[in-house]
Amino acid sequence: MQKYLNKINSPADLKNLGKEEIPVLCSEIRELLINSVSKSGGHLAGNLGVVELTIALHRVLEAPKDKIIWDVGHQSYVHKILTGRKDELDTLRKMGGLSGFCSPDESEYDTTFTGHASSSLSVAAGIAAARDISGEDYTVAAVIGDGAFTGGLAFEALNNIGNLKPKMLIILNDNEMSIAENVGAFSAFLSRARTNPRYTASKRKIVEKIKNMPGGGKKLMQSLQNIKRHIKWMVTPNLLFEQFGVTYLGPVNGHSVEDMEDLLRRAMTLDEPVLIHVITKKGKGYSPAEKSPQIFHGVGPFEKSTGELEKKRASFSDAFGKTLCTLCEKNDKVVAITPAMIPGSGLLEFSNKFPERLYDVGIAEGHAVTFAGGLARGGLIPVTAIYSSFLQRAYDNLICDVALANYHAIFAVDRAGLVAGDGATHQGMFDISYLTSIPNISLLSPSCYSELEKMLDYAVNQHNGPIAIRYPRGREKADIDNGDFILGRASIVREGTAVTIAAEGQSVYTALCVAELLKEKGVSAEIIDVRTIKPIDFDTVFKSSRKTGYLYTLEENLRRGGMGEMLSSYAKESLEPFKVKIKAIEDTFVPHGSINELNEKYGFTAEKIALDIERMLAQ
Amino acid sequence: MQKYLNKINSPADLKNLGKEEIPVLCSEIRELLINSVSKSGGHLAGNLGVVELTIALHRVLEAPKDKIIWDVGHQSYVHKILTGRKDELDTLRKMGGLSGFCSPDESEYDTTFTGHASSSLSVAAGIAAARDISGEDYTVAAVIGDGAFTGGLAFEALNNIGNLKPKMLIILNDNEMSIAENVGAFSAFLSRARTNPRYTASKRKIVEKIKNMPGGGKKLMQSLQNIKRHIKWMVTPNLLFEQFGVTYLGPVNGHSVEDMEDLLRRAMTLDEPVLIHVITKKGKGYSPAEKSPQIFHGVGPFEKSTGELEKKRASFSDAFGKTLCTLCEKNDKVVAITPAMIPGSGLLEFSNKFPERLYDVGIAEGHAVTFAGGLARGGLIPVTAIYSSFLQRAYDNLICDVALANYHAIFAVDRAGLVAGDGATHQGMFDISYLTSIPNISLLSPSCYSELEKMLDYAVNQHNGPIAIRYPRGREKADIDNGDFILGRASIVREGTAVTIAAEGQSVYTALCVAELLKEKGVSAEIIDVRTIKPIDFDTVFKSSRKTGYLYTLEENLRRGGMGEMLSSYAKESLEPFKVKIKAIEDTFVPHGSINELNEKYGFTAEKIALDIERMLAQ
Repeated sequence: MQKYLNKINSPADLKNLGKEEIPVLCSEIRELLINSVSKSGGHLAGNLGVVELTIALHRVLEAPKDKIIWDVGHQSYVHKILTGRKDELDTLRKMGGLSGFCSPDESEYDTTFTGHASSSLSVAAGIAAARDISGEDYTVAAVIGDGAFTGGLAFEALNNIGNLKPKMLIILNDNEMSIAENVGAFSAFLSRARTNPRYTASKRKIVEKIKNMPGGGKKLMQSLQNIKRHIKWMVTPNLLFEQFGVTYLGPVNGHSVEDMEDLLRRAMTLDEPVLIHVITKKGKGYSPAEKSPQIFHGVGPFEKSTGELEKKRASFSDAFGKTLCTLCEKNDKVVAITPAMIPGSGLLEFSNKFPERLYDVGIAEGHAVTFAGGLARGGLIPVTAIYSSFLQRAYDNLICDVALANYHAIFAVDRAGLVAGDGATHQGMFDISYLTSIPNISLLSPSCYSELEKMLDYAVNQHNGPIAIRYPRGREKADIDNGDFILGRASIVREGTAVTIAAEGQSVYTALCVAELLKEKGVSAEIIDVRTIKPIDFDTVFKSSRKTGYLYTLEENLRRGGMGEMLSSYAKESLEPFKVKIKAIEDTFVPHGSINELNEKYGFTAEKIALDIERMLAQ
Repeated sequence: MQKYLNKINSPADLKNLGKEEIPVLCSEIRELLINSVSKSGGHLAGNLGVVELTIALHRVLEAPKDKIIWDVGHQSYVHKILTGRKDELDTLRKMGGLSGFCSPDESEYDTTFTGHASSSLSVAAGIAAARDISGEDYTVAAVIGDGAFTGGLAFEALNNIGNLKPKMLIILNDNEMSIAENVGAFSAFLSRARTNPRYTASKRKIVEKIKNMPGGGKKLMQSLQNIKRHIKWMVTPNLLFEQFGVTYLGPVNGHSVEDMEDLLRRAMTLDEPVLIHVITKKGKGYSPAEKSPQIFHGVGPFEKSTGELEKKRASFSDAFGKTLCTLCEKNDKVVAITPAMIPGSGLLEFSNKFPERLYDVGIAEGHAVTFAGGLARGGLIPVTAIYSSFLQRAYDNLICDVALANYHAIFAVDRAGLVAGDGATHQGMFDISYLTSIPNISLLSPSCYSELEKMLDYAVNQHNGPIAIRYPRGREKADIDNGDFILGRASIVREGTAVTIAAEGQSVYTALCVAELLKEKGVSAEIIDVRTIKPIDFDTVFKSSRKTGYLYTLEENLRRGGMGEMLSSYAKESLEPFKVKIKAIEDTFVPHGSINELNEKYGFTAEKIALDIERMLAQ
């Protein structure tokens, strides 16, 4: 069935293919992609769009000697297929299987770890600079989407590349999409660029006319030659890039391997940074994905023949989006900000109901946060919806542009804690550490949807100052009835006598399961939902712990700088008599896997925690 | 002496000045600036450059109803002088006095807190968007230097502004300098823009020629009109900004109040974002500063008549730069990276000796770190010199682009701990928290120059993985002889019996002074220089603390996530019997002041610490 693909075990095998064989290979690759992702879920539309581009790159370059850096890396499935990993594609995003991004741990063809957008130019520039200092000779190519170009990091790199001028390739994979539809002025610029041929034609016509004019035509042409650089700007779409000192080639049809190979070979003869503008179609070759590239950007399993998705169950993101709509109806100061994550953050309904109150700033987390500071300064109440791992990119913006002025700005920190499938770059395991270190910022953690609603309502209508709410990917495990929310006050959700478990967020449900397991062993656990991580309710936690003699802290965050350290260190300082044990993620990066597998591996199952507590009590 | 300035108590007083009075006022302001800064130190050259610009802005706008956002804010002295604070200028950067940046705490004319570069466009966009939603009517103006435009945040904002298109002013203060000379492609672009008049002239000539041609001239002109937008690109320097959807005006002479007023008034008639390109001369009107704008960017006190600076004493930065030169001579894999901070980071000698091994990437901290990851991937050993508070901007880059791949990359974290003069945005008080939360990164803290040398040598020649060295602004207090450096091993620098003080960095010297004070009270203190903060030497610290019964931890960092919490929480968990007290910066932003004043206020003097320890022992 896979007549040609079967023979491709490394990029070298690609080079012998004849012209007529390539389209068949492309079809086979697309079939494999659709088959695999329909079963396992993953990033589909982007990969379908880069089949020809990936083949062209690997036919022209000599990887792994030549270094290819895939920005973000979620469009590297085809690259994985062509570099000896096609038979493992069904292990994608599974524990011990292929990563959904690039990973040098799994192949020498993956130049570096990727996962967050806009970094590829910086990495490629660094490798190219190192190559030049070391006197080595190889090609470095960064493949970056038009969406990722809205990230400031890409511009910082472009500025540096235009100055250093190393020989390197920048492949702009322009599919007019980031994850959702592209926003922003850069996208409009590319649209103009894409209309290039028309301008080229009209320029040619004008030049002909001038030359053929009865008097002065030739002389005029000379004048025009003098401002040749400006004429070039006039008629080609290279404006922005050439101003940064990068040579522009294209645009080229991203579904013609031949055209791209020609351009790549031409680019490689130039001893300078060259940007090749490739136009691709997201979802190419699979009509459901062509029609809805946004939905098929990253998907769960789906029915291959129809493209029908498995029904998505309600999630914390949905609860957030729904609540925000309600709050916005009642309070006309509420506005929302998203860095290109409308569907992921549960903001689809909000975007339909309140389009003028939603700012999609593109993939630009730093700007999202500083912009929120400006909106708050202007008298509004901005709610920035952002994933925990992406908010890392705005740490300084939180400090200098929000917390210092104590602005009333709300951060809905989605995907906090362990996250399935995506791996190390997407775990929400730092936010308790980095958010609680910042003066003035309060941090809340809801254990269920109703609590998230109460917290958002509090944050919008009662709080005054910066406040973050962290919640996990996926759905609530149970409704935990905590009564009213009061900042800085914890709730005892189950009474007990032998050990106190202080838990945050979805760990509260786990703690309740632990209590059931311990009960079977005759151990009575008191469960505290801390609700507010900062300022934390030392009184309630310590009073309970004094009673039971044992405090076990439970959080989905790194130990270092986490909630457990906060409680434990203060207990030590204030001479508390009870014993403390911290359960958190230890000092390591957490790879991809299912939530159950990750919980098992990192000791977050109720069973493992119960055992851990028994050991503590036996000490 | 200050004939006109005496009468200016608010911007309203500016509006009645006659044309001929303005140059005199400018001279008076310059005199005041030079007088004040020569005594107190501060940012001089940039402020001398914006005297006319600030006057023009305040004559045309109606602050504080209209909002002006000064990017970074170190060029806002003139603004402070004109908004009722001229008599306090001699309190600049002093405890309780005027901030060296913008601060709403001191004046309603300061729109928001500033301090870090490149954020003004995001803030201004947010305020403008809030104004539009609220149906209010005022002008928002961001004043941003060409140097700050190398920061990706400015581009993220520009992308968003070009999409939202709010009415707002962007004043590009182009002095061809950031702090040091500008680098990068953006700077080259502006250079081309500055040569504009020549191109404009040649365009006009061509158009005339075409029109006057005997046959077809008029028709041709029509064709040319059809591509009018491209003609505009051809002949004006607005290329980059107009592609982002921002209207470009200028360039204008930044030392002609009249010309700038004209352009500002024109811009304010437009209902869209407008960028005004203002050309200023850094240091204008004071010849020592005109000649050496880089030196007079931020200076200590100097002799006014000659511009002679008070002799700078050697500092940790110098020790770093000197050591790096030595290491680079012996190891040809060593390269250095700076985000526009060659002099500040002590890299002047390095930049002269090894220009080809130094990458000045512009004000672009995120790129600096990811680029370092690329250099390491390419086989080099990058040493990134960066201030503690600026490295906050690269937190995610450290996580995803360096630590995850465990690259051998070194970070020389300057200005760690309390920093005099600059205030809240420049305190190096977060780095222990954010660096120790990242897996794979080791963190060292030298107590003196010789230790910094040993640590850098270790980091370059023995370590393998990411490693950061934090050291303070200014000079060492004493040479602390610790013997060889071994990662993860602490040193007992003074033996004692009654209390253990575990200190990091320059706090070790303070601890030794504390020990002297305690000795007078008959208390024998054992002092430990932890040397490595991560991985910390629990064994040595806990063994000593068990012996003395008391552990007092001392660090110049926030308590939350700091070294003390790490030691205290682990001591609690591991059932250590000794008592613990943490001395760190409590949960607050720290304003400007002298180091002595800050130490006094936050309890970091030897006297206060000794008292604190006595209280602990008496508990």
